[in-house]
Amino acid sequence: MAKDFQTREENYAQWYNDLVIKADLAENSAVRGCMVIKPYGYAIWEKMQSVLDKMFKDTGHVNAYFPLFIPKSFFSKEAAHVEGFAKECAVVTHYRLKNSPDGKGVVVDEDAKLEEELIIRPTSETIIWDTYKKWIQSYRDLPVLVNQWANVVRWEMRTRLFLRTTEFLWQEGHTAHATKEEAIEETEKILDVYTKFAEEWMAVPVLQGIKSPNERFAGAVETYCIEALMQDGKALQCGTSHFLGQNFAKAFDVKFLSKENKLEYVWATSWGVSTRLMGALIMAHSDDHGLVLPPKLAPIQVVIVPIYRKEEQLKQVSEVAQKIKKSLEEKGISVKYDDRDTYKPGWKFSEYEFKGVPVRLVIGPRDLENNTVEVARRDTLEKEILQIADIENKIEHLLEQIQKKLYHRALSFRENNTLAVDTWDEFKDVIENKGGFVLAHWDGTAETEEKIKDETKATIRTIPLDGKKEDGKCIFSGKPSKQRVVFAKAY
Amino acid sequence: MAKDFQTREENYAQWYNDLVIKADLAENSAVRGCMVIKPYGYAIWEKMQSVLDKMFKDTGHVNAYFPLFIPKSFFSKEAAHVEGFAKECAVVTHYRLKNSPDGKGVVVDEDAKLEEELIIRPTSETIIWDTYKKWIQSYRDLPVLVNQWANVVRWEMRTRLFLRTTEFLWQEGHTAHATKEEAIEETEKILDVYTKFAEEWMAVPVLQGIKSPNERFAGAVETYCIEALMQDGKALQCGTSHFLGQNFAKAFDVKFLSKENKLEYVWATSWGVSTRLMGALIMAHSDDHGLVLPPKLAPIQVVIVPIYRKEEQLKQVSEVAQKIKKSLEEKGISVKYDDRDTYKPGWKFSEYEFKGVPVRLVIGPRDLENNTVEVARRDTLEKEILQIADIENKIEHLLEQIQKKLYHRALSFRENNTLAVDTWDEFKDVIENKGGFVLAHWDGTAETEEKIKDETKATIRTIPLDGKKEDGKCIFSGKPSKQRVVFAKAY
Repeated sequence: MAKDFQTREENYAQWYNDLVIKADLAENSAVRGCMVIKPYGYAIWEKMQSVLDKMFKDTGHVNAYFPLFIPKSFFSKEAAHVEGFAKECAVVTHYRLKNSPDGKGVVVDEDAKLEEELIIRPTSETIIWDTYKKWIQSYRDLPVLVNQWANVVRWEMRTRLFLRTTEFLWQEGHTAHATKEEAIEETEKILDVYTKFAEEWMAVPVLQGIKSPNERFAGAVETYCIEALMQDGKALQCGTSHFLGQNFAKAFDVKFLSKENKLEYVWATSWGVSTRLMGALIMAHSDDHGLVLPPKLAPIQVVIVPIYRKEEQLKQVSEVAQKIKKSLEEKGISVKYDDRDTYKPGWKFSEYEFKGVPVRLVIGPRDLENNTVEVARRDTLEKEILQIADIENKIEHLLEQIQKKLYHRALSFRENNTLAVDTWDEFKDVIENKGGFVLAHWDGTAETEEKIKDETKATIRTIPLDGKKEDGKCIFSGKPSKQRVVFAKAY
Repeated sequence: MAKDFQTREENYAQWYNDLVIKADLAENSAVRGCMVIKPYGYAIWEKMQSVLDKMFKDTGHVNAYFPLFIPKSFFSKEAAHVEGFAKECAVVTHYRLKNSPDGKGVVVDEDAKLEEELIIRPTSETIIWDTYKKWIQSYRDLPVLVNQWANVVRWEMRTRLFLRTTEFLWQEGHTAHATKEEAIEETEKILDVYTKFAEEWMAVPVLQGIKSPNERFAGAVETYCIEALMQDGKALQCGTSHFLGQNFAKAFDVKFLSKENKLEYVWATSWGVSTRLMGALIMAHSDDHGLVLPPKLAPIQVVIVPIYRKEEQLKQVSEVAQKIKKSLEEKGISVKYDDRDTYKPGWKFSEYEFKGVPVRLVIGPRDLENNTVEVARRDTLEKEILQIADIENKIEHLLEQIQKKLYHRALSFRENNTLAVDTWDEFKDVIENKGGFVLAHWDGTAETEEKIKDETKATIRTIPLDGKKEDGKCIFSGKPSKQRVVFAKAY
């Protein structure tokens, strides 16, 4: 265990922050609320990007790039959107600096004031729908299925590495359709893409559902989401997919001539996941020994550490290690052979354990004699001695096992921390003392939702898509309800 | 030829702008000087990114991400850097908007003024070296070989799509080394990576050299560059690699303990290419019929268009087309089969010709009878009828031929437009009336360089790395010189 590293039990928030920093994933920068994503953390994000990007392309989407800046007036065009987004954001007011009159440094040149302020995009619906107006005239121009990988800025007062930062990286899809049905289908299709990514790649089980009106994206008709449960019993929203109706088409006057030769407003969706997923990935699996990564997203899947006393031994061990490395790489497994002589084996063991490398192989002189290798898995911390013969298939199989194990461990955790409750006292008790997902009846009103939040800090995370219908009474008001919704405290 | 499309002869600048817009590469946005990169243009940029990213990784570099914002005071820390960069840039002064008192839209909240203004990065040396201070203590932490893919902003007064935009996309490498020699080696290694990319992938021949002190990057000890010649006889800088000495290490106090246990300043490099490369790619090869793309960077390498009258014919043609498509894709060739019935074949021919798709295959009922396909190549506009047997190897070979042809055509053009001149009158005449690269002696002073620029608008593009030494007299001052340098008007 790394020095000065607190356990989850001792202080979960501190554990998370230390983990991110000590595992070289990210750190705070000189700019308040903005992080530096370090190479090891960025390598994980790149893997996420490449998998998601392929999934988007396989479902017919293309990438494009829209400006970082949005004219201030654009925000006012969609009534709900301006309330949600045009508040805490970075505002560019000038375009030039000049030498300070006192000779010390530079100051803003007041002669270079913009006529209209520019906002750093907190999300790009407005600038994109202003553009789509030029792209869309006829049904033949539809659908438009565009995604953008970009940085966005939301001026957060309280920030946490990956989970909530002033600047963050994300993808935002913005699609345009001829019919309502097609747009809803797109919204749901993307929710499935996100779900598949979370469960099969991140090994994080998620609940699919829709948001209550209170929690809806500003400007959406319906917000779909996936929600995961973290080890401290708090929920984390992992991705959202919005059906925007014709709201932005109306705000930016985007109409098309239909096959029936009628001029109609275009239907829209938007959807996104961000570097916040890194937070979910870290918190879902890691333990008091450091980071635990699912093999499919680990930048280094296998590390090989040699044990030796003399140069001659290193040479012999290296020969075997390189052979194993090559056979694993031919299977598409990423391997690091760490033969640095500036660090001792024990130091390396701690290092890779803390950084969550799924499998560690150790080869020493005795292994050479016996044709063996020591195999340690990060998820269970178990070690075993294996024969080198056929090692590439054994390791490939082990990586698959680890991937599955992590998913099922997280799923069991969620199942053990999901509770249906029927009384207000029990509800308060579970939210306060146990955490987790709480399934409860709700009367469907924003007032009740607000009151529950005020009293318990719990919010409606989602109204499950596959939730079965059952008659019940609202946990708070006692009014009738037809379906349980999912409550939790959330990140 | 597309309607309303001017030839290069008629108006080169207009030709370029129309080409970018009508080929769906990019367009101007609602924000002055900022472009929208459209899906087709972005697909080319993605190909460039993926090739370059692999080249960087193959040479030992890793990616990371640093903040978009830079505190104003950071710019003043390196004396030359502040002069070059802290002037025309976007300045964030506030972090909140509020509802306008008159009820119309939103206004800047004057209560949310930042204590210190933030600058949108025009380049990231300052924020990165502020970070490296935390990363580097010992020789064991070196080298640091980091690259970042990011957007940057420089407030340009006159902008042109891809060539000069207020916001642009780029990669910026920032490396830290223990010795001067290693840093210089890195600078030169990257110059070679850029050269290889330009010549082998973009099919654009470039000159390697160093910049005169006047044209050097603000804060660099030496700036290396690659320069290409466009069809209008103007030069375009395609990439720069800077040896920064210890300038930024000193400005941000980044020292390391050497193997010999001495505290020393770190040596640095930085290097970048941007979406400007798109401009070079477009201008180097395209013609009066539209875009011409080198196969290696074309998003669609082969398009197949069916000819048919009846549904039954389309079915038969499609069967063959799909078979060809599959056999090409197995070779790693990207193919689009365009069987849309909303457009006529002639319309499709113009469309793909204008968009620079390297090879077009046309299959009609007669081809079915003869087992043939019509093959048209974009670079020469030549057509031929080929037997379908072994078509995948024929097309693969043809794509290689086109790639080479484009490179050699551009190289011939450059050779035909590179002239050594020895008198001032001839110099002025060539620069004014012919353009191209002009090899001339220069006395090595900034004053002479300035005067030549004032009189002719020509600048020293580069001092060639492979330029042979020869005694001569400066074209302008008549003073002695040891080597010719390359002059040209430039983008």
